[in-house]
Amino acid sequence: MNVAIMGHGVVGSGVAEILYTNPETIAKRTREEIVVKRILDLRDFPDSPYADRFTKDFNDILTDDSIRVVVEVMGGIHPAYDFVKQCLEANKSVVTSNKELVATKGAELLAIAAEHNVNFMFEASVGGGIPVIRPIHQCMAANNILSVAGILNGTTNFILTKMIEDNMGFADALALAQKLGYAERNPSADVDGHDACRKICILAALAFGKHVYPEQVHTEGITSLTLEDVSYAHDWGGVIKLIGQTKMLDDGRISIIVCPMLLKNSCQLSTIDDVFNGIMVKGSFTDDVMFYGKGAGKLPTASAVVADVMDCVKHIDTRKYLFWEDNHDPSYVADYLEQSVCLYVRTEKGCKDCVEKVFGPVEVLTRDGAPETEFAFITPRMVEKDARAKLQTLEEQGVEVKTTVRVGEI
Amino acid sequence: MNVAIMGHGVVGSGVAEILYTNPETIAKRTREEIVVKRILDLRDFPDSPYADRFTKDFNDILTDDSIRVVVEVMGGIHPAYDFVKQCLEANKSVVTSNKELVATKGAELLAIAAEHNVNFMFEASVGGGIPVIRPIHQCMAANNILSVAGILNGTTNFILTKMIEDNMGFADALALAQKLGYAERNPSADVDGHDACRKICILAALAFGKHVYPEQVHTEGITSLTLEDVSYAHDWGGVIKLIGQTKMLDDGRISIIVCPMLLKNSCQLSTIDDVFNGIMVKGSFTDDVMFYGKGAGKLPTASAVVADVMDCVKHIDTRKYLFWEDNHDPSYVADYLEQSVCLYVRTEKGCKDCVEKVFGPVEVLTRDGAPETEFAFITPRMVEKDARAKLQTLEEQGVEVKTTVRVGEI
Repeated sequence: MNVAIMGHGVVGSGVAEILYTNPETIAKRTREEIVVKRILDLRDFPDSPYADRFTKDFNDILTDDSIRVVVEVMGGIHPAYDFVKQCLEANKSVVTSNKELVATKGAELLAIAAEHNVNFMFEASVGGGIPVIRPIHQCMAANNILSVAGILNGTTNFILTKMIEDNMGFADALALAQKLGYAERNPSADVDGHDACRKICILAALAFGKHVYPEQVHTEGITSLTLEDVSYAHDWGGVIKLIGQTKMLDDGRISIIVCPMLLKNSCQLSTIDDVFNGIMVKGSFTDDVMFYGKGAGKLPTASAVVADVMDCVKHIDTRKYLFWEDNHDPSYVADYLEQSVCLYVRTEKGCKDCVEKVFGPVEVLTRDGAPETEFAFITPRMVEKDARAKLQTLEEQGVEVKTTVRVGEI
Repeated sequence: MNVAIMGHGVVGSGVAEILYTNPETIAKRTREEIVVKRILDLRDFPDSPYADRFTKDFNDILTDDSIRVVVEVMGGIHPAYDFVKQCLEANKSVVTSNKELVATKGAELLAIAAEHNVNFMFEASVGGGIPVIRPIHQCMAANNILSVAGILNGTTNFILTKMIEDNMGFADALALAQKLGYAERNPSADVDGHDACRKICILAALAFGKHVYPEQVHTEGITSLTLEDVSYAHDWGGVIKLIGQTKMLDDGRISIIVCPMLLKNSCQLSTIDDVFNGIMVKGSFTDDVMFYGKGAGKLPTASAVVADVMDCVKHIDTRKYLFWEDNHDPSYVADYLEQSVCLYVRTEKGCKDCVEKVFGPVEVLTRDGAPETEFAFITPRMVEKDARAKLQTLEEQGVEVKTTVRVGEI
């Protein structure tokens, strides 16, 4: 069966490489040979072993009826969205690794795929090569999913691991990540949490059946964390991790957030270090299950794309009922400030007495070498809005609030 | 669509419960109602809410053409094997959680299923509710699987966790596991490694495409481990876990073993405690991915069975190409004694000098409160047969070898 690949960047060249270097194994497993007929890219690749397959004209793919499956690995929304839509409307199944596309256009593209009786698949969009979409959708199909929480971005996890294990400051750890190729020159998508946000949107849609748009999700990055915070977390018996989390609430709404969280060392997600990802899913029957591995990288991600292509080819005339509804009701996502939390708070000029006058009894934290004027604590559980108001009261009394981090409840 | 359940024990009653309590959710996801038409059990369940569905006659299921999917959750080989075979031959898809059946008859039953264009599925046979069969088979389909290693038995992992964390002896930890319902009155299948052995056989067959029979696998349990060994492992910077492991060797043969292993604390499997399971799979492209969760229990396991049933119903006329060859070539499984290992060894009356005269330089281990006459070490890497011969030499010199444990290389 003929397929096409749109985009010949990191992942796209990996997809071509896997399909070209393993054709017998793949053919044996799909019971059908998979031939890359076209590769779409605006750049020239004269030295590529598949130089003859390249085209700069999308219509060479769109109008070729022999191409039944199209891989979209261009990234971004434009022109990826337009191309994918046209492919689905032309009755071609589409496989993508593009988390931004799925997080912002997933519901619409799934509906178009359903209408045209083809498949739209995106295992590689979350967790790179880690199986997670299909396991949640198929293996846990008898469960109601209660919550999903994960370390969804390897770059920030690498930076936090360096801060935790090597006492390296944020800026140095980021520079090291850039040097090693884990972080881009403009690291905002990673360190500000946007990448993790797109992934938790996809997981929430899959878990609860309704699309969630990234702009609906309160998202905080890791740029304001310091070694002092890491040290307090250590003495508390835990670590700070960037977590994307979503939960089904009792009233049918969901909570969803991306932010650093303090995790106790007994939490399985706390053991996930370096560039690894871990996605913890709570099912109504299975309780917690977790998927772990390298969440990015050329060949891991490409291999997940190829697995989806193989599934499309094997089931070319069968619809996989992967589907979620579109949803523009703003009340579906509960206000994060209305959720109850415990907050870790590091202050200058705070003290037990003045803090407890405002918060009631708090858990006082310690760390080696803390200056006299530093005071850190964990608030009692309360609605976040109220906790923020109390911090405001403290500030009005001359206490400087340096960092706040939510205590994770995974 | 009508289905039948053979066996109304722990898992079987869970399957019925899930199908009866969630019919709308399940029907929405499969696009078809699933009706339990018959439940086979020799016992009477007059107070069951589905008392009218029970039968003691297998033919009520076999000859009912409206029953297209049959769940086998009786356990054991007889009569499960015979019933499953007849169902497949009658063009019914079969879903099972029976690891003994899959590990001993899997290749044959898969072949019969293929011949009759129906499905034979067994997600629940490894890892209970943890997704593992489908992720390896589908999500990692573009990879060659290089190795699989896992904590595959929750009972022994609970016992070892109690030994490690609470300094509880093996017998006490086993008694506690029995009291809590984690271990059976006759705990042999768990503590002697047979349960883990069946699971690693299934994983090896799935990963490498050829059936491996349990009797081909060198299997050791945890009954000879002591608190002294646990303590040495701790001082070495690790823990002892019961591991099932299989690797593809360069010559096309495989290694496969079930035994306690010393794991460094940096190994992700070392973080898996209590009744949890973890299965680490190394793919040629993905590198290590791990699946984690509760590996047993009524509802987690039953939910995995129901997910397979839903998959069968959704694809009732589509074959899933899950398949492995039968294999009776004894040379396919390499002799474990020919593999190279490092061994942890605890002795009475050993000493650095006498041990190093036989082994060359060894890594000497320490623990608090060790008696003068105790000496523990880790051998250099060598073929296991040679290491065993050297231990024999030591014994001939009056050194008593109390415990040996392989050092894990996951």
